[in-house]
Amino acid sequence: MTTRRELIRRLEAAVGPDWVIWRREDLATYEFDGTIEKQTPYAVVLPDTAEQIAAVVRISRELSIAITPRGAGTGLSGGAVAVKRGIVVGTARMRKILEIDPVDRIAVVEPGLPNIQLSEAAAVHGLFYAPDPSSQRACTIGGNVAENAGGPHCLALGVTTNHVLGIEIVTAEGEIEWLGGRVAETAGYDLRGAFVGSEGTLGIVTKVIVRLLPVPAEVATLLASFATVEQASATVSATIAAGMVPAAMEIMDRLTIQAVEESLKAGYPPDAGAVLLVELDGLPEVVSGQVTAVRAACLENGAVDVRLARDAAERATLWRGRKEAIGSLGHIAPNYYIVDGVVPRSKLVDVIGRVGEVSRSSGFPVANVFHAGDGNLHPLILFDERVAGSTERVLDAAAAIMQICVEAGGSLSGEHGVGFEKQRFMPWLFSEDDMDNMARIRAVFGNEGLFNPCKILPEGTGCGEMGHSAAALRNAGPDAYV
Amino acid sequence: MTTRRELIRRLEAAVGPDWVIWRREDLATYEFDGTIEKQTPYAVVLPDTAEQIAAVVRISRELSIAITPRGAGTGLSGGAVAVKRGIVVGTARMRKILEIDPVDRIAVVEPGLPNIQLSEAAAVHGLFYAPDPSSQRACTIGGNVAENAGGPHCLALGVTTNHVLGIEIVTAEGEIEWLGGRVAETAGYDLRGAFVGSEGTLGIVTKVIVRLLPVPAEVATLLASFATVEQASATVSATIAAGMVPAAMEIMDRLTIQAVEESLKAGYPPDAGAVLLVELDGLPEVVSGQVTAVRAACLENGAVDVRLARDAAERATLWRGRKEAIGSLGHIAPNYYIVDGVVPRSKLVDVIGRVGEVSRSSGFPVANVFHAGDGNLHPLILFDERVAGSTERVLDAAAAIMQICVEAGGSLSGEHGVGFEKQRFMPWLFSEDDMDNMARIRAVFGNEGLFNPCKILPEGTGCGEMGHSAAALRNAGPDAYV
Repeated sequence: MTTRRELIRRLEAAVGPDWVIWRREDLATYEFDGTIEKQTPYAVVLPDTAEQIAAVVRISRELSIAITPRGAGTGLSGGAVAVKRGIVVGTARMRKILEIDPVDRIAVVEPGLPNIQLSEAAAVHGLFYAPDPSSQRACTIGGNVAENAGGPHCLALGVTTNHVLGIEIVTAEGEIEWLGGRVAETAGYDLRGAFVGSEGTLGIVTKVIVRLLPVPAEVATLLASFATVEQASATVSATIAAGMVPAAMEIMDRLTIQAVEESLKAGYPPDAGAVLLVELDGLPEVVSGQVTAVRAACLENGAVDVRLARDAAERATLWRGRKEAIGSLGHIAPNYYIVDGVVPRSKLVDVIGRVGEVSRSSGFPVANVFHAGDGNLHPLILFDERVAGSTERVLDAAAAIMQICVEAGGSLSGEHGVGFEKQRFMPWLFSEDDMDNMARIRAVFGNEGLFNPCKILPEGTGCGEMGHSAAALRNAGPDAYV
Repeated sequence: MTTRRELIRRLEAAVGPDWVIWRREDLATYEFDGTIEKQTPYAVVLPDTAEQIAAVVRISRELSIAITPRGAGTGLSGGAVAVKRGIVVGTARMRKILEIDPVDRIAVVEPGLPNIQLSEAAAVHGLFYAPDPSSQRACTIGGNVAENAGGPHCLALGVTTNHVLGIEIVTAEGEIEWLGGRVAETAGYDLRGAFVGSEGTLGIVTKVIVRLLPVPAEVATLLASFATVEQASATVSATIAAGMVPAAMEIMDRLTIQAVEESLKAGYPPDAGAVLLVELDGLPEVVSGQVTAVRAACLENGAVDVRLARDAAERATLWRGRKEAIGSLGHIAPNYYIVDGVVPRSKLVDVIGRVGEVSRSSGFPVANVFHAGDGNLHPLILFDERVAGSTERVLDAAAAIMQICVEAGGSLSGEHGVGFEKQRFMPWLFSEDDMDNMARIRAVFGNEGLFNPCKILPEGTGCGEMGHSAAALRNAGPDAYV
């Protein structure tokens, strides 16, 4: 057995005494991520190099102490929670942009770089980084790789794995390795692809080579109002059926619209049953044709109003409503719980209807915001944690919604990962054999059980012991992301 | 030790006596694929179900006899060659389309289905399957999954892995398993992603769920002629810089143009230094804007002529020149050897120049056809195998070209895989540690060394013993694919 004092001494030797956090009050920040689970690590280290991270991983192995990687802590499935305590490795100090190559359109960055800063830096070359989670002002590129993050603009352009060419990692064994490189095609097995979305269970990202795309010459943003979510969904299907893939197609329901208008005044029609936000981009002559076609699809499917943002300011206001929709729900309920599921697009309307039934039978209002184009839904269960037993009942309602997604042929996570929160649902989708095979992939990267334990796959000892903590429930507010 | 007779008896019990091929003369068809390597298996089986394949895999394990999967044998890296003899598993009888769902736009197919037949069947629903290797009339969907196949139209739409949602496989251990499913996002590790492109070393595909896309309402095909490959390449860069991603952008050089015109009369200007074939598709109002923009980019970069195909017939003629370009080289040389490399797009012109130096120093003419948009080049070395020693010198020239690609920051394979042919080059790109990690992925799927041996990774015993056979060199001709 190792004492805390011994552990801290060794970590300080590895990363320097200034970058080991161990006082109870300083650790509080690192107890939770964007979910409701909570656990206090023994120590948090903030290394500056891949070599330091490798040294910390080796310490965790020698001492048989769990280790958990952490980006900005904005995750929504408990992936960065140190379920078995141990060491948390934060990447907050590794936030440099090492290279932007405007000719080959790639960037090499450190893992702790906040997502938005890459697009801001690339803008001088007329380029941007496509994946845009709503948390993009805070969340990191390394965390995005771990979760294979999506975002509203991933409909046309694809999620993180489609934009990451190469990754330098420290494996769970403490080795520094490269997966992939500077070109899209690589020889041999696609270990890069297996690593992206592995939720920090196979290694820690230390460098990332990403693709950059040219900033579109023209952007048009349309807001269409409908009486029902069904009409908005039908418009999405019709648009895609016409062969277009808009940059983004987002639906918000009545409850979400009301919350947005009460708090933000984004200009959404307050009496609409649903709004559809569509973004089109590209060459001006291309975009103008698409605007005409999308407007027609909206009207054919019952839109009562279709508005084209006149300028960048109006576009920003419309998007602000969407990006801060979750936070704005704080105006109509003290707490929320976000569910992340994905279903075949054809099942979306039916599934939203069944989510409504869960809302009625549980007594909790549910607001819906979803990436309609790819069948990714985000029901938000609204509640008040001060009412005794409500948290447990919310978790039951969330499980019921997950079950509906699986029954509809969908999956447990559209973009937020399985993490700690949803590992118990994995047997709904996968057999024991399937999960055994997944567990074997950990051996490829040297994970022997203490590297980010209790994530993705249901595991035994010590994982079920940590209950959620009602005190850690996050209040809905403007800092919330989805 | 097992006798041939014993092996055949057991295979016949597994798949039925009609579907085991073992006579010397019948095996000849299965000795090679599209490359120059050649080896005779002990037996070929043509199973009809996943269960039969699983039984055959178990026989190979029990008897410690090598097993090699095979689609249509059109591969260009020796992946389907039974290097250690043993059993070849052909999927030619498993060619059913099991389901086309026009609402969710997916199809479920068997692995032996020829690629083109899927798009033909989906056409009644206004849908198509995007990856379009030039061999698409022959090559199979299962083989495409194994090689992560590309094609001219993969520039905008991505390669096979971007279109495969789920795969049923028989693992190298003989278990039947599903990877992925009917939606794009899945929970847990992306084993589907790791399997696609694993070149038949991890298992045999038995069912595939693929995405279908709507047939574009409008297609426009442009042929631009230039004095130099450099000008054509600059046009590609300018088009992409303008924010457009055409459906296809293909460049052919002077030698290729001459061969095409001598044999096919595709209407390419016979005195041009290079032609650029651009295809644009989408809504009519969108396409017409793009045609204007691409034409302008061509003229700004020195095009002497830009021609828009007037109708479907002219479009087909222009494409026939590209799709049969390789075969047409048979009119100017008795044999060819295809090299497949990929480099950062910015290095393309420089690398093509260095390929020209290899041509001059080796004395072999080299024709170039390439997927210019993604930096994927296909130098074709032209020679006459009847000249003593020429085959060895061609292989040396090919190795020199591979080395140039790697030095330019590229990779060993744009789309044809490493297979048997290029495993010896892997150490140019990967350290021993890297390759050890790749080897470990085989353990996840239960490959203990006899499942498609001697492919991708350099291996020891029994792999180097098979030389190429000059007699197996394929004559260039209309059946050749690239």
